[in-house]
This record gives sequence, structure tokens and C-alpha cells, in this order.
Amino acid sequence: MSKVRPISGFPEWLPGERIVEQHFLDVIRETFELHGFASIRTRAVEPVERLSSLGEDTDKEIYAVSRLAGGTADSSREPKLGLHFDLTVPFARYVLENAGKLTFPFRRYQIQPVWRGERPQEGRYREFLQCDIDIVDVGQLAPHYEAELPLVIADAFSKLPIGPFRIQVNNRKIPEGFYLGIGLTDVTSVLRIVDKLDKIGPGKVSELLQAAGATAEQAKGCLALAEISAPDESFVERVNALGVEHETLTEGLAELAAVIRVGAEHAPGLMVADLKVARGLDYYTGTVYETQLIGQESYGSICSGGRYDALASDGRTTYPGVGISIGLSRLLAKIMPSLSASRSTPSCVLVSLADDTDRAQGMTVAASLRRRGIPCEVAPVAAKFGKQIKFAERRGIPFVWFPASGDQSNSDSVKDIRNGEQTAADASSWLPPAADLWPRVVA
Amino acid sequence: MSKVRPISGFPEWLPGERIVEQHFLDVIRETFELHGFASIRTRAVEPVERLSSLGEDTDKEIYAVSRLAGGTADSSREPKLGLHFDLTVPFARYVLENAGKLTFPFRRYQIQPVWRGERPQEGRYREFLQCDIDIVDVGQLAPHYEAELPLVIADAFSKLPIGPFRIQVNNRKIPEGFYLGIGLTDVTSVLRIVDKLDKIGPGKVSELLQAAGATAEQAKGCLALAEISAPDESFVERVNALGVEHETLTEGLAELAAVIRVGAEHAPGLMVADLKVARGLDYYTGTVYETQLIGQESYGSICSGGRYDALASDGRTTYPGVGISIGLSRLLAKIMPSLSASRSTPSCVLVSLADDTDRAQGMTVAASLRRRGIPCEVAPVAAKFGKQIKFAERRGIPFVWFPASGDQSNSDSVKDIRNGEQTAADASSWLPPAADLWPRVVA
Repeated sequence: MSKVRPISGFPEWLPGERIVEQHFLDVIRETFELHGFASIRTRAVEPVERLSSLGEDTDKEIYAVSRLAGGTADSSREPKLGLHFDLTVPFARYVLENAGKLTFPFRRYQIQPVWRGERPQEGRYREFLQCDIDIVDVGQLAPHYEAELPLVIADAFSKLPIGPFRIQVNNRKIPEGFYLGIGLTDVTSVLRIVDKLDKIGPGKVSELLQAAGATAEQAKGCLALAEISAPDESFVERVNALGVEHETLTEGLAELAAVIRVGAEHAPGLMVADLKVARGLDYYTGTVYETQLIGQESYGSICSGGRYDALASDGRTTYPGVGISIGLSRLLAKIMPSLSASRSTPSCVLVSLADDTDRAQGMTVAASLRRRGIPCEVAPVAAKFGKQIKFAERRGIPFVWFPASGDQSNSDSVKDIRNGEQTAADASSWLPPAADLWPRVVA
Repeated sequence: MSKVRPISGFPEWLPGERIVEQHFLDVIRETFELHGFASIRTRAVEPVERLSSLGEDTDKEIYAVSRLAGGTADSSREPKLGLHFDLTVPFARYVLENAGKLTFPFRRYQIQPVWRGERPQEGRYREFLQCDIDIVDVGQLAPHYEAELPLVIADAFSKLPIGPFRIQVNNRKIPEGFYLGIGLTDVTSVLRIVDKLDKIGPGKVSELLQAAGATAEQAKGCLALAEISAPDESFVERVNALGVEHETLTEGLAELAAVIRVGAEHAPGLMVADLKVARGLDYYTGTVYETQLIGQESYGSICSGGRYDALASDGRTTYPGVGISIGLSRLLAKIMPSLSASRSTPSCVLVSLADDTDRAQGMTVAASLRRRGIPCEVAPVAAKFGKQIKFAERRGIPFVWFPASGDQSNSDSVKDIRNGEQTAADASSWLPPAADLWPRVVA
């Protein structure tokens, strides 16, 4: 057996860090549920055919899954499988598969790992946790949901120690209509090039656009549009000032203005109309979101999504949707160094043992504490009390319990090992301070 | 794109069923934490070399993972990867990888999907959720942990609507010592054959044993041992009455007696010494567990595990451990038909809209309810109130909120749509009955 070593792109947390991650997961889940999103969990695999139909960019990222020992008798009838690379594609498939058993508009959240066979780099992993909310409806999807989703994210983030952030919103119809309006018909290619603006700068983008067939004037127009950003509806006037007219552009401007207006009303300062945001995946058709940690813009988006009108369709019925996804692993990779857990174990109390024959008594004390919701464990061995206290100390367990000695002449007592205070206590009524009950996340 | 269809062996739940699953996950997690187990989450993949070193049986079950588009420049330096088939092997690797940063004895729990490329059948899936607890130590592991783990499981199960169950305990040293004592030296082969007793019956087991080289007398001995089962330490006498002597047998009997004694003391009726329990995986070295739903014995074990002394070893240091794992998907597959959620969405309240222009007001009401922990959502559209009430009804949402109309002459009100009672209410103070706040699991 070769030596164990980490696998690049597949990060794991130590127990204390995992407590931080779990806290984030709990807050996100509770917020999603408070907003009426139902949980689903989809299988890790999808037919490769479904995964790879979403544009050339996704193909090379897919992990294929196959039985090490080869096929079974019925393997020829089974589709070739791959690990999902996001939670939107499995969700769209789940909606199609269960449409008859769901009620629409359907609000769901989903928190699972996803896998991409990319080259790992800072904040980019091969396995990472995503926390998604989506709303899908049948045939038509009301536009007010496009304004609602970022507000749910803002609610979740407001309860987490992540510092200031900004949700950038765009609508794909704006660049699309604009490009068509100035005579650029290969919208996807132009979008892909403009999407690189933050990475390669305007000069290089202009060069690439012209290499792809745009005139200098058209490239200038694309850059002028991409530069527009505003925390309010003023972006509409600035786009109009560029003098381009197209029906799709007008539609996109009205839709984005509505989202920004609701955002400004319910969460002032949260959303910014940012006309350079494009999102890589081809399935978005309207509103798109990205989220940046303020002061860490170069790290890229930690929460993204958008509206997709055609992703979930069985040919007869279409289920348009809008979704947004917290890249939790990506977010935590950035902020974990500034966070820690108040202890690395759930245990609030260590029940000590005077003698190994007292274990049954210690277990009874522990059971009594647990019945009232106090996490605890019994000492592994009846070592000297000093050693047992050290055991608790090393784990950050704040309290050590001393069961009454066998002769019944004294009572149980509990010691706060942080200040040494020891008091008589009864396992059927004692409570630790609420702040000590469970590990806390400290910044 | 071909039609969507389920993939055999990869089950998924509908939203209401997922609420049941989530309830089980929450209770299990909280119980594990009350017992002082720290959470870890390991990557889904391990080097195939590590996965396939655990005996011939595991090999054919492994799902290999590889990039669909082929290798990267550095792929030759990367190990061949497979999806983990349990959580014990990844945990053992995690312990070796992080030994310097953990405190021992280390108590951890882990709740994740695992994958096995088996032929799917009733209760046997290719992707399924496991909920594991393990305790590992350095060099030596105290035997009292072998008695503790089933008590943790019993605590979790006592809070869940799963009906009566029984944890069967054996110790591998007992059959091993016994077989050696009667002159059968290929212990693994004999174990594998005897393990089939429940499926194929004693006659066929005897045949197979003799085909493998045992005498009729030896086969009879093996069967006599496998038949012994007792809720207390009386099994020791019954084994001794078979007249076989071997040091390993004596050791195993003493260890199992200790586990059964503690079980009888802290959870009477829970544990049974059952000498035919073997467990398939080769890494177990002492105590082994299986758990059966009483009356559903033929369904097989829903919670299994055991002690492994050599699984986590880096050649210099060994970390012996003991673990037990709830097969949650397997358990739920059996009992889900008898359970349901009180509603299929977290929402307790639907905030209705008299007019679509009232959405901002509705969102403010909803935000006020959520701030006090009441899950809710705003109606998708200002349809007739009857239609909005139907919308809530279809989802099982018990309350519909009516914001005050624009002229301020009246106040907000809330209607319990199950009995039609409507009362004036203030979004900053109203509370639903505690039983309605979140969906409940009903048997």
C-alpha cells in the first residue's frame, strides 16, 4: 500500500473546520427553508448524454463513472454515466421525471457535492459543495422570482461571518439585443470573449473581438456596454445613450430594471446592475447573477446563477426556471483562515472516572445529561484526574463532571476547567451556559 | 436527448419523502453529537489501490472515476480513482493522513452517500446513504467502546419511528478459535460459507463445508456453533459445552460476554449474542454487529459494523478502531411506505396577495414572519383568494395570511385553512402552534 497523501482538488476539513462548514450549512439550510424551499437530493450520476449536451465547455470537465470490473449482463441497456458538475442539470431532469407528482411553481433547495475534472487552482476544486435554490414553473415563470432569489441569498449571508458582499445582476437579453443591434450576430462567441474582460482587460478583448470579425467600432460598442454598472435603474439611461435599438435589448433592460428596483427596495446596497456579467453556462436565457466579496473581487464569484427557459423540457412541456447557487467550498476556502470553532468536538462535558469500575455509573450520568440535550462523553480511562482534565482541555471541552464517589457521602460536582470553579451539581437538572452547549464559530 | 428515466439502483425521493429522510438524518446527527462524535466529511473518491486491497469481494463493486475527455498533463502522476464503497475505508485513510492533527481516542461520525456497482435488488442500491460512528485510538483500543457503539445506535433508533429492532453481536475470534480448535485452518473460507446460513440453510452449508474439505463431524461443529444465540452471557456455557478449546476462542468469548453484559445493563433486550453473524468485509478482527427489524429478519441488516485492528496503519503506527453504520437508504426503503410528512414544503404560511401591486407589502410581511423563525412564502400571483387558498391546500400549508388592504381601515389577518378560522394577526408577533411550525413525520 502506498503512503496516504491528499488528492489535488479534493479538499477535506479537519474536525474543527468541519464544525465551521456545518454551521454554514445549517444557516443556509434554515434560511432556504424559512423561504419555503423544499429539499431534494438527487443521485450523483447522470447519463453522460445529458451532461454533455450543454455546450463544449462542460464536456472536458465531466468525470465518467464505470464499474471497475466491467459490465454486468444488463450493462448494454444502461446509459454511460458521469458525475454531475452542477445541481441545476440534475434538478431539471428531476423535474421532468417527477413533473406529475410535483406542485408548480416548485421551490426547491439542494445541498450536495458536485464534481468537475478541471485543473485545480485557488478556490477551484474537483469536488466541491454547492447550495442551490431554484423555482420552476410550467410554461411560464413569473419574473418576480428573478428578484426574489438574490434576496434569499442576502438573508442567508447576513447571518454568516463572511463580510461585505455584492450581488451583480445582468440580463443576457441586454448584451444579446445590443450585439444584434450593432450587427454582431454570433452572440455566443462575443459573450465568451467579453466574459474575459476582468481577466485580460479591454485592449485584449477588443483585439479578440476584431479577430472574430467585429469592426473596431463594434468592439468599442461591446466594451462601452460592458463598462456600465449601477446600483439603481440609472443603467437604463446609460445604455440608451449608446444609441443602439433592438427589441431584445429593450426587453432585457426592462427585466433587469425590475430586478434592481425590488432589490433596492428590500435590500438597499445589495444588488448592482453589472452589464459585463455573462456566466459561462449556455443554458441561461435571461437574468444572470454573480456575487463578489467586496475587497476580494479578483477571487471571482462565490454565488452565481440565472434564469433558464429551456433547460427542462420534454418536447411537449417546458419548465422555465431561475436558480442561484452558493459555491460553499469556494467561499469557505477563502474565509476559513479567519474562522475557527470554539472546540473541535460537540462534547460540552467530559464525565470523569475515579476508577474503571465506575464506568457504568459514568454512563448513567452521561445518559442523564444527554436526555436534556447536553452533548457529553465518558472519559476513556480512569487516569489521574489531572490527566482527565488535560484530555478535556486538549479538545476544548469546557466542563468535567465528577460523579459522587461510591460511599454516597458526597454529591456529583462539575468543574468549569477554564476558571477552575467547581460546584455541586445534579445530572438531572444541571445546565451549562447556553453559549457553551454546542461549539460556536468564532471569527 | 433521450427521455428521462430512473437509473436502476440510484433511488431518489419526492419532496415529502425527503422531509422524512431529512428528519431521520437530523435525529441521527443530533444523537451522534450528543454522544460526543465529531463530524467529518471525506472526498467521494479514493485511490483504487486502497479500495481494492480489502478482499476479493469488494473489487467487483468498485465504480472507477476518470475524466471523460482523458488525462491532463499531470494525470500520469495521479492515482487511478474510484468512488468509496463504505465510509470506514476513507475514515481510516483520513486518520492516517491527519494523525498529527487529531486527538485520540478520536470519535467521529460521518453521513454521506457511498457507491457499489452491485446488481440492484430489494433494499440494495448502487448509491445509498450511510451514517457511521467510529472510535479509533493509537496502538491500543479500549474494549469498552465495543459495548458503547450499539448503545448510541439504540439511542438514535429510540427517537425514530422504526419499530422494534435487535442488535446481534458476535466476535470473530469465536468462530476463528473454534474452527482452529476443531482443525479447520482456512478460517476465511469457512466463515464465508457459514455466513450463508440464513440464505441457504444448514443442509446446504454442511454440503459446502464438506466440499471445501471439512469432515461431516467438523461441519456439524460449525453448525452447532452458528446456532447459538442468547440475550445474555449464557452463550458462553453453551459454547463450552461443545468441548472445543482454543486460546482465541476463550478470548473471543470473554470479549463478547463483556459487550453483552454492558448492553443488558444499559439497554435491556437490545443486544443478542448471535454466533452466526460474520460480516462480509475482511477488515473486521473482533466484535461484529448486525441489526434486524424484528418481524422483518429476512430483509437483512440495517445497521452493521465491527472492530478492525489493522485497517488504519502506516507501517509504524496502527490505529485500531470500532465502528457501526446505519444503512439509512436501506432502512428507509423498508419503512418509507408507512411514513409521510405532514406537508411537502417547509412553508407554514402562504402570504396572499389582493393585487399584484401588493407584492412588496407581502414580502415585508413574509420577512417579518421569517425573522421569528416562521417558514413562509408569498403567493405566486394575486389570483382570486379561493385559488390562493387552494394553492396552500395542495401543498399542505396550514395558514394563509391576508395583509391589511391598502386603505389601512382593517388589520392583517390569518386563516387556518384546515378549519376555516380567521383571526386578526400582527406579523411581528403572531405565532403558529408549535406542531405546525415545521413539517412533521407521521406514521
